[in-house]
Amino acid sequence: MKKEELKKLIDTAAGRTPADVVIKNCKVVNVFSGKIVEGDIAISGGQIAGIGEYEGKEVVDAGGCYAAPGFIDSHIHIESSYVSPEEIGRLLVPHGGTTIIADPHEIVNVCGIKGLDYMMEAAKGTALDVKYVLPSCVPATPFEHAGAVINAPEMEEPIQREGILGLGEFMNFPGIINADDSVLDKLMTAKEEGKIIDGHGPGITGKELSAYTCAGILADHECSTVEEMEDRLERGLYILLRQGSACHNLKPLLKGVTSENSRRCLLCSDDRQPKTILHEGHLDNHLRICVEEGLDAVTAIRMATLNAAECFGLKDRGAIAPGYRADIVLLKDLKNFDVDKVWIEGELVAENSVYLPEIRPYDISSVKGSVIVKDFSKEKFKMNLKSNKVNVIQILPGGVVTAKETAEIKLDENGEFMRDPQVDLVKTAVVERHQGTGNVACGFLKGYGIKEGAVALSIAHDSHNIIVVGVSDEEMEFAVNALIEQEGGIVLVKNGEVIERMPMPIAGLMSDQSGEWVDEKLTAIHEKAFSELGICGDVEPVMTLCFMSLAVIPEVKLTDMGLFDVTTFSFIPVEAEV
Amino acid sequence: MKKEELKKLIDTAAGRTPADVVIKNCKVVNVFSGKIVEGDIAISGGQIAGIGEYEGKEVVDAGGCYAAPGFIDSHIHIESSYVSPEEIGRLLVPHGGTTIIADPHEIVNVCGIKGLDYMMEAAKGTALDVKYVLPSCVPATPFEHAGAVINAPEMEEPIQREGILGLGEFMNFPGIINADDSVLDKLMTAKEEGKIIDGHGPGITGKELSAYTCAGILADHECSTVEEMEDRLERGLYILLRQGSACHNLKPLLKGVTSENSRRCLLCSDDRQPKTILHEGHLDNHLRICVEEGLDAVTAIRMATLNAAECFGLKDRGAIAPGYRADIVLLKDLKNFDVDKVWIEGELVAENSVYLPEIRPYDISSVKGSVIVKDFSKEKFKMNLKSNKVNVIQILPGGVVTAKETAEIKLDENGEFMRDPQVDLVKTAVVERHQGTGNVACGFLKGYGIKEGAVALSIAHDSHNIIVVGVSDEEMEFAVNALIEQEGGIVLVKNGEVIERMPMPIAGLMSDQSGEWVDEKLTAIHEKAFSELGICGDVEPVMTLCFMSLAVIPEVKLTDMGLFDVTTFSFIPVEAEV
Repeated sequence: MKKEELKKLIDTAAGRTPADVVIKNCKVVNVFSGKIVEGDIAISGGQIAGIGEYEGKEVVDAGGCYAAPGFIDSHIHIESSYVSPEEIGRLLVPHGGTTIIADPHEIVNVCGIKGLDYMMEAAKGTALDVKYVLPSCVPATPFEHAGAVINAPEMEEPIQREGILGLGEFMNFPGIINADDSVLDKLMTAKEEGKIIDGHGPGITGKELSAYTCAGILADHECSTVEEMEDRLERGLYILLRQGSACHNLKPLLKGVTSENSRRCLLCSDDRQPKTILHEGHLDNHLRICVEEGLDAVTAIRMATLNAAECFGLKDRGAIAPGYRADIVLLKDLKNFDVDKVWIEGELVAENSVYLPEIRPYDISSVKGSVIVKDFSKEKFKMNLKSNKVNVIQILPGGVVTAKETAEIKLDENGEFMRDPQVDLVKTAVVERHQGTGNVACGFLKGYGIKEGAVALSIAHDSHNIIVVGVSDEEMEFAVNALIEQEGGIVLVKNGEVIERMPMPIAGLMSDQSGEWVDEKLTAIHEKAFSELGICGDVEPVMTLCFMSLAVIPEVKLTDMGLFDVTTFSFIPVEAEV
Repeated sequence: MKKEELKKLIDTAAGRTPADVVIKNCKVVNVFSGKIVEGDIAISGGQIAGIGEYEGKEVVDAGGCYAAPGFIDSHIHIESSYVSPEEIGRLLVPHGGTTIIADPHEIVNVCGIKGLDYMMEAAKGTALDVKYVLPSCVPATPFEHAGAVINAPEMEEPIQREGILGLGEFMNFPGIINADDSVLDKLMTAKEEGKIIDGHGPGITGKELSAYTCAGILADHECSTVEEMEDRLERGLYILLRQGSACHNLKPLLKGVTSENSRRCLLCSDDRQPKTILHEGHLDNHLRICVEEGLDAVTAIRMATLNAAECFGLKDRGAIAPGYRADIVLLKDLKNFDVDKVWIEGELVAENSVYLPEIRPYDISSVKGSVIVKDFSKEKFKMNLKSNKVNVIQILPGGVVTAKETAEIKLDENGEFMRDPQVDLVKTAVVERHQGTGNVACGFLKGYGIKEGAVALSIAHDSHNIIVVGVSDEEMEFAVNALIEQEGGIVLVKNGEVIERMPMPIAGLMSDQSGEWVDEKLTAIHEKAFSELGICGDVEPVMTLCFMSLAVIPEVKLTDMGLFDVTTFSFIPVEAEV
């Protein structure tokens, strides 16, 4: 804030200068007192000058709505919405989102710091205030090839940037608990700059949880039970109650929120697809659930505002009070939380569910062309197996955790897999797409249900190599080539033709189209996956495949380096008996 | 924290390395969950590694005591205790004080930034963690001569120092409300460095309060009613519930503390004399009062710990949890709050009310010799009055606020005051002692009750010139000369002899002796003031005089520049009719 702005703000508050905007006829939610107070909200520039009786150059009648501070999503991956930062702003703001803490973990795994640069620049094209954290685990594991390796030396420059709050979710919790040297170096990089370190510690308990917390971890969004929540909360971690497209932890965790501990509780999405945003909303949806589950509305609003601001040190926001940022959400009631209007830094940015500012799309050329595959052909899918008893990845309900099973398959004379149409078992492969290693690893997938064609994606957590599954090497090859040609995204192939596709030119992870377009495309992809390729109705065809390469989630996964047993943290041969 | 310390901390938390110290057999107050939990506290270096079952190189049996986080006094002037920073540590730590936010407003008014330097260096000699704020109003008003003038340019260097949290209580609230240019410059200096601005805003309401808050004011310790507290709280100011030697706001304000707003409430002393500390304690006394008044003990402890840490951005303290500073207070119960042992940064620093570390007194030569008076003699007390009807300062109960009254006095042929022993009206004078201006201003004081001799002090808020009162110009002259000779402090004179004295070589504000010595001396001074000089029993002879020069508290005061009417903010003649 400049001196002249401060002067104008004080003059406005004192009533000597008319406000730029006055919001009249509203009930202000005061997160400090817990009370709802009637009064005009006077705005000067980007700040709130005062609440009381004020006159302004522009007067907005709030029609008796409640005025709450703008909502802060404490942890979200923009990439998981398959849209650009500009577009996520257009989608979230009409739902009351005014600030997000975004972890660009996916794009940085593909593009390195260049991916972060793009995300930071692109976010300038939206009114939504996007604060970033620097991904802490790139690559997520040493058992795969990603597009970048970011250790402490590579962190030094970006961690100092304004707008980078600190390190993103520290998924390598074993590394912290064991005090690995390279992990300590990363932690020190953040500490020395006075930056935060966000957490990700599912399932850790007791002394290991204390060791993890000791490292300076600020928060955890991975709780799924009240017990886990309490264990973390009493150690000083803020708890992010997550309600995403895939993970629905909010309802169970709300049972653990008390008047004693609620100040340490926040709300987050983590991953939120356009469909969820368009149909259910954003934090307005979280708040609806909170109140449905019996939480007091002001306490719920605090979790979406003041608590998040305190947790992340965003001292300028989180409340409607003099001197705070004019990030304001008008709500028709405190039950359905229907959003009427939204201001960000004093600008009216949404009205009647419509995002108002002009969208300034940022040039994506720096993150295009990310699908770099060397020497690929279907020959890479040859497995030359020595045994017909093989380890297979068994898809489980939910589509993230898998079971390690064995199966007997038919082999031809060269030791190649001969698919039996009566058995739901197909070949899957991961094709390295970053460093031109030429790596292709093959394995078997059970329970996906595909009966025709092939599916290929360039979204495969966390290294985002190409993952492909299909009924024949030919269909799989065709799908991979089509994906390479369109620079990533999703392709569905049947009988040597692309029957549906979604190009994702932004790092092979995000579309440059609208959220509505992405949603329609995904719907079409899902429908054709079921109707044309025969994929099981209870499997989410895209998301399930996305997680088949994630080598930190049990029980067995496939990376570009081979079949990986997450329970023993080691590669295993495809043959179950050698 | 260094990398090897972090490694050791994590190793200790995980149970791989024995703790340096384990506190066993204690009930840990968890400020996050609000629960009391049983468990060992494992300490590694200066941090808490974990709570649970731990082994250590040294084991301390807590004997079933409660373990609370170390207490944080959110606002205190060390100078008001008349002792050095090293000594205040010795006095406060055995009462559970582990951090104080100290505002060296008095010494900086006398010595300028050199005074701050001394306070910061001297504080290194105590285990107590003294965080300073930079005095914001030096001089407090333009109507007096202080030892320094500190405007925005002079603030630039010190505000950047580590250990300086920001600007101290911004007493010039009219300057903020009016958006005075030089005030805005000061505010910008703090804002540009991301530092806090502490508040001081008694009596402000409505739009003026919003204007004051808008400036970025963090907290206020000047509330005396629940209404004032609520007005500030809903505008986002933290509320410091004050219980000092003079101001007792805690009890009335506790009625305003609710489960909704308690996270924004803190505890502070402001001014606390050795007698109060030695006989009543420090924040342990505040906590006792909180619980007596019906506040839940954990909520009260939060006000003295976590809330204060959050308010001032001290992220490393305020809780007993992994990774937090090992600032721990063992309490015999949660009712009397008797302190058994205290650790600061992992070191046992107090036991059985005794401060344990060696005290390292810091060289005071940089702040000695602060009493610089030019061309002083009793001739300066001559008033040459043209009228016998004069404006007088009427002392009121409490001794801070005064009434402006008029009186008829006897004058000799030269227009000089002839004291009537039957009337409680005496001459008082302020002698400039910083810049060698030679300024001496005279006035009349009613209600002090002095019948013999004179009293002179070099403590006279906020510029700390010499203030003297006495029954004759000769006694007053003798007192001033004696005070100059001893480099400040307090002197009592009777019949041309010093009958009691307390030298204050540190800036004329603080003794270099122990708190016990100061307390004994003050007791002797009070006794002799009453018994030998005949001062009224209901007037605090030292403190009352200290405030007779404070030109921001109504109704009429005397500075080195003359008699000042605080209600009109202008100088007035001594003669009521000219």
